[in-house]
Amino acid sequence: MNKNRLEAFSDGVLAIIITIMVLELKVPHEASLDALKTLLPVFLSYVLSFIYLGIYWNNHHHMFHATKHVTGGILWANLHLLFWLSLFPFTTGWMGENHLAPTPTAVYGFVLLMAAIAYYILQRAIIAQQGRDSLLAKAIGRDWKGKLSPVCYLAAIPLAFVSVWISNGLFIFVAFLWLVPDRRIERVLSEREKE
Amino acid sequence: MNKNRLEAFSDGVLAIIITIMVLELKVPHEASLDALKTLLPVFLSYVLSFIYLGIYWNNHHHMFHATKHVTGGILWANLHLLFWLSLFPFTTGWMGENHLAPTPTAVYGFVLLMAAIAYYILQRAIIAQQGRDSLLAKAIGRDWKGKLSPVCYLAAIPLAFVSVWISNGLFIFVAFLWLVPDRRIERVLSEREKE
Amino acid sequence: MNKNRLEAFSDGVLAIIITIMVLELKVPHEASLDALKTLLPVFLSYVLSFIYLGIYWNNHHHMFHATKHVTGGILWANLHLLFWLSLFPFTTGWMGENHLAPTPTAVYGFVLLMAAIAYYILQRAIIAQQGRDSLLAKAIGRDWKGKLSPVCYLAAIPLAFVSVWISNGLFIFVAFLWLVPDRRIERVLSEREKE
Amino acid sequence: MNKNRLEAFSDGVLAIIITIMVLELKVPHEASLDALKTLLPVFLSYVLSFIYLGIYWNNHHHMFHATKHVTGGILWANLHLLFWLSLFPFTTGWMGENHLAPTPTAVYGFVLLMAAIAYYILQRAIIAQQGRDSLLAKAIGRDWKGKLSPVCYLAAIPLAFVSVWISNGLFIFVAFLWLVPDRRIERVLSEREKE
Repeated sequence: MNKNRLEAFSDGVLAIIITIMVLELKVPHEASLDALKTLLPVFLSYVLSFIYLGIYWNNHHHMFHATKHVTGGILWANLHLLFWLSLFPFTTGWMGENHLAPTPTAVYGFVLLMAAIAYYILQRAIIAQQGRDSLLAKAIGRDWKGKLSPVCYLAAIPLAFVSVWISNGLFIFVAFLWLVPDRRIERVLSEREKE
Repeated sequence: MNKNRLEAFSDGVLAIIITIMVLELKVPHEASLDALKTLLPVFLSYVLSFIYLGIYWNNHHHMFHATKHVTGGILWANLHLLFWLSLFPFTTGWMGENHLAPTPTAVYGFVLLMAAIAYYILQRAIIAQQGRDSLLAKAIGRDWKGKLSPVCYLAAIPLAFVSVWISNGLFIFVAFLWLVPDRRIERVLSEREKE
Repeated sequence: MNKNRLEAFSDGVLAIIITIMVLELKVPHEASLDALKTLLPVFLSYVLSFIYLGIYWNNHHHMFHATKHVTGGILWANLHLLFWLSLFPFTTGWMGENHLAPTPTAVYGFVLLMAAIAYYILQRAIIAQQGRDSLLAKAIGRDWKGKLSPVCYLAAIPLAFVSVWISNGLFIFVAFLWLVPDRRIERVLSEREKE
Repeated sequence: MNKNRLEAFSDGVLAIIITIMVLELKVPHEASLDALKTLLPVFLSYVLSFIYLGIYWNNHHHMFHATKHVTGGILWANLHLLFWLSLFPFTTGWMGENHLAPTPTAVYGFVLLMAAIAYYILQRAIIAQQGRDSLLAKAIGRDWKGKLSPVCYLAAIPLAFVSVWISNGLFIFVAFLWLVPDRRIERVLSEREKE
């Protein structure tokens, strides 16, 4: 089976998700800077979600770069990931419009958690197909980032009811963690080329 | 004629359909879990349609993997399929917002039926062009899934006025039937490679 | 310059235009068939525009299949075509919501006319770059369809104020004319392969 | 790393941005030409932004045509550019709906400025990776257009509070400046081919 079409379809879905989020930034009727200020929480949650989707696209890109064959299981694990990512515009808009109220913030964290779990399942499905000595398995190594992230999201859900700033602080912290592109795969790939 | 551009265009349309469906999940103004509960039927019908579109993409992928040449007839049969699939966001939103009322459920089933017929026509158009001994014809075999599905949809339309649960049960049943990826084509392909 | 990226971008824009048109089919609040009936004119104008965009995609596909090099002029002629096509969702929704009133029907015809002119300019730009003996120039021949279509649209604009049925009849007539895929290019291509 | 997927993703995002802008052209309820006239400022700002996005796509196309390897830094610089471009539908709609009022015009200019800076950063990131003697570095040369444009946007921001016509005049002036496709890269490329 052909991985190019899976990549193209995923790119399409991610490109649409990242772009329709901006539709939640509804054009205000007034032409004043005050009208813009009201939109600030929606704008900031848009920025956060844009960065998260950028990270997912970036890591997805790396992961499939190190993948050769695509099975039915991988196809569905990929669609499962896209499903949770497709809920980002909704949770982003809800959290933003309610000025980071506790419940929307907790739900935002829940969708981040489910997307992280879906990404982990996809990664496992690819490694299961390629074997433990595969390029991807070596590149990921102990995967401390992939393990720490869901723990942070899980903590952020109840903490939203203590203080939404702690939860959002955790979301931003995880984003910074991943903003550094996944050099592990790049390193292993370039080592291979040298051999 | 080039099948890559037909695949790319279909991927684009399917990616957009699957993603704009989420726009029907309208951001509630309240920040409570109760507001989310009201959205539950819309969410569940979104999940169902997401799975259906995933199945169509998956099978479309397999079908064109086994196709070499694209004729004008195949192009239009493909656009005809995309037309019915493009109505999914509408019927999904209508069924969800009306908490699975009989008429929207019946219309949802009607669009599923028309998409299944359009898929069948597309399959026939490809086999007609490739010959009865083609890879696709062999892979599909007697095509009991492709024949059982429209029967289920057809039954679900009047049954929606008896009980919407029967109709939705049928929709879920057919989805599970197809969720197993089309191993027939995979099998025939891998047999060819062995020879 | 690379024609693949121009094709991919055009496919993306056309896929989005064809799909967001369906957003004008607004989900009714009532769950009755009567609510659907009210949407009938919007639905029918959606069908008409879907067919038109399918024709444009189809012909665009054929035209660039017969094109080798892409210049800056061709890029901008292509964007000019996409601009007029991007107005289809607007004119389709306006004509549909107003139950085919004269002014929206005339404006619908005007946008069809501008798209036809933009297509003609794009075709000229490609032939200018490839020479009069090029594959595309031969394939198009006297291009009676490409010349008759804008005449029909031009006639449909004032006729909308006489009877919208004449105008819509002309739109449907031209669509049927083109629905037959552009066999001219297919023929010339297959002749070349024989040589 | 593969530049094709970065190009495909960017094409997808640009195609969506350019197309969803048209959703700000809201279908009027009345069927008269007067209703269209009210939309004129929204339409004109749509045309302006369509041309700007066409220019960005065109230059992006040229820039990556002259790029071989893609690093993590280039990926993020590209996402940064797409972020600012994704705000075009919002600023276009806001400026249009408020009939080119000063504040929305200044904000429109601000987003143009940020996009120009993001483009400059991306260009620097590519040249940094390819070396000063690279194809792109030579093709760009002194880059007077790339330096003059942000100066014009910067001037247009405060000038919007003097007269929005000066600001919009500056926006149109810069668009014309770039409408001429970036022949510099084309020239260097064709010279290379001759060698």
